[in-house]
Amino acid sequence: MSGPDAIAKQFVDFYYNQFDNDRSQLASLYRESSMLSWESSPFQGSTAIVEKLTTLPFQKVLHKVSTIDAQPSSPTVASLLVDDSEHPLQFSQVFQLIPDGGSYYVLNDIFRLIYG
Amino acid sequence: MSGPDAIAKQFVDFYYNQFDNDRSQLASLYRESSMLSWESSPFQGSTAIVEKLTTLPFQKVLHKVSTIDAQPSSPTVASLLVDDSEHPLQFSQVFQLIPDGGSYYVLNDIFRLIYG
Repeated sequence: MSGPDAIAKQFVDFYYNQFDNDRSQLASLYRESSMLSWESSPFQGSTAIVEKLTTLPFQKVLHKVSTIDAQPSSPTVASLLVDDSEHPLQFSQVFQLIPDGGSYYVLNDIFRLIYG
Repeated sequence: MSGPDAIAKQFVDFYYNQFDNDRSQLASLYRESSMLSWESSPFQGSTAIVEKLTTLPFQKVLHKVSTIDAQPSSPTVASLLVDDSEHPLQFSQVFQLIPDGGSYYVLNDIFRLIYG
C-alpha cells in the first residue's frame, strides 16, 4: 500500500467487509491503546471495542461506502473520513491508522450517526 | 486547556467564531505542513488554505455547532469531529490539532458536506 488514498481505500474495503461478515474479527485492527467513540460513548482497548461492536442491536448489516477522504498526518499516520449514504442510516466515521509491522491498526475511531 | 474535550470545545468555539467574523484570521491556526480537504479538493499550507476559505462563494455565514466528539491520539494530538445541523447545509469536519508552544495548530482539516 502506498499513499493515503490507497491505504484508505484498502482499509475501508477490508473494515466494512469484515464488519458485515463477522464483527468479532475486527479485534485484530485495534490495540489496547485504541479508542472508539460510538455516538458519544467511549470505549478503550480491543476487547471493549469489539464487545461494543458485536453487541450492537442488529444481526445483519451491509455498509455501502459513498465517499472517502484521506490525509496523511505525521509521516506515520493516516486519517480517514467515511460518509455512508445507505438508506436508512447515514453516518460519518473517522479512523486514525498507525503503521504496525507493515500493516496498520486503528488508534482512533469516531462514529457518529447523521440525522437529516 | 486540559483534556481532549476541553481542548475541542475551546478550539471549536474559537475556530467558528473566527470563521464567521473574519476568515482571513484563520491563517494563524495553520502551518505550511497543514492540509485541508474541502469537498475532496486538497489544499496545503496556511496561504493556500486561507485563500480557499476566504474565496468561498458567500459573504455572511453563521456556524451552529451541534455535537463535538474528541479523542486524544498520541500524547500530543487531539482529533475532533463536528456535526453541524444548521439549516440548510449539514457538514462534518475533522481537525487534527498539534501542540505548539502552549497553543495548537491545525495539521489536518477534512470538510465534507452531508447530503440528506
